Amino acid sequence: MTVTIRPLTGIPEIIAGDDLAGMLSEALSPMAPTDGDILVVTQKVVSKAEGATRPAADEAAYRQIVEEEAEAVLRRRGPLVITVTKHGFVCANAGVDRSNVDGAQVVLLPNDPDRSAHRIRLRLERDLGVTMAVIITDTFGRAWRRGLVDVAIGVSGMLPVLDLRGSTDMHGRILEVTEVAIADEIAAAAELVTGKARGIPAALVSGYSYPPGDGRATDLIRPPAEDMFR
Amino acid sequence: MTVTIRPLTGIPEIIAGDDLAGMLSEALSPMAPTDGDILVVTQKVVSKAEGATRPAADEAAYRQIVEEEAEAVLRRRGPLVITVTKHGFVCANAGVDRSNVDGAQVVLLPNDPDRSAHRIRLRLERDLGVTMAVIITDTFGRAWRRGLVDVAIGVSGMLPVLDLRGSTDMHGRILEVTEVAIADEIAAAAELVTGKARGIPAALVSGYSYPPGDGRATDLIRPPAEDMFR
Repeated sequence: MTVTIRPLTGIPEIIAGDDLAGMLSEALSPMAPTDGDILVVTQKVVSKAEGATRPAADEAAYRQIVEEEAEAVLRRRGPLVITVTKHGFVCANAGVDRSNVDGAQVVLLPNDPDRSAHRIRLRLERDLGVTMAVIITDTFGRAWRRGLVDVAIGVSGMLPVLDLRGSTDMHGRILEVTEVAIADEIAAAAELVTGKARGIPAALVSGYSYPPGDGRATDLIRPPAEDMFR
Repeated sequence: MTVTIRPLTGIPEIIAGDDLAGMLSEALSPMAPTDGDILVVTQKVVSKAEGATRPAADEAAYRQIVEEEAEAVLRRRGPLVITVTKHGFVCANAGVDRSNVDGAQVVLLPNDPDRSAHRIRLRLERDLGVTMAVIITDTFGRAWRRGLVDVAIGVSGMLPVLDLRGSTDMHGRILEVTEVAIADEIAAAAELVTGKARGIPAALVSGYSYPPGDGRATDLIRPPAEDMFR
């Protein structure tokens, strides 16, 4: 089983109201996606197409929007705020982003990224005649590790967690690792081709056999009652 | 740029003293690796080849080894212990693993995974005549997200963090995301083919242009002074 990750090229700068799903569908068509492929879309183009942006003339305005978008604040250190978003994600600055945006605009997270992923998937499946999964990604830090990685904030058409409870390995022994966050692994894999400076907003992942189903990225949020690090 | 991830097949069950680097080299040879490819090796085969195992007849013996291997304990909840390993990694149970091992043995983390990666890389480069990077991975949990993902615990031949500080995007704007944990993203990507139940201990990642250099996985550890979640 070989997994391939291909960048989607030719997507122009996205503005509010753009038919992003249609543009993704058009860019995918020459790549000949097949049943079971996964389209990974970076958050910023989804937010911009949905108009999830706000004017912010300066740092103070940006900070104000971060506070408004944060459902809760876990830690503060200097200008860094570790927040819980209204979706339940734990990330810096409530996911509000300043880069890659025209003028003095900041980009919020999509209002409901699982729903955004669902809409894109339905359009792709209709246009392209294949069964796909869609993952919307954002770039998050981690508590104990340096550097950022892409993770799934929206999922459609697959289960984001591979449940191996009760599975055995090739020697018949029960596996110790029981739940694998495959949607986050696919998100991380896709970042290798979307990158930050390249202007590639999406990638097509082929060859990975995911569990189909009605999963959501919010399934990836550790319930606060089980969270030892808030 | 297309990234491909291919499983290494034909590696037998590894025992202490096995020439793992030689076996990986042999398995890689028919895959025709080229300059810049990355070999990702899962931790367990490295530990087993290095003899980093301990007898543990029962749960109490396992728990005792976890306490011995932990440099510090961050949290306890029931049988779950979140630890700092002697290398500085934050993970459950000091990285001591019970699955996939013959008899009543547990598997520790390699003593120095960066060094293990370095040794494997030198052997591959000598045998195969190509310039490669090597990443050794283990499966870690995250503070706020459900499910486990593979991360880098050993690195050789590349920088594990892509430093974009001062870089601009395609519109000339300074990027907000400045440090990407690419070694962790590659580790996560490789897990899509190594899996847990498949007995595939390694994967070859091709087509990703990493920054070469004398990096280490310990570079990925957030310094305790910057860590807000200990």
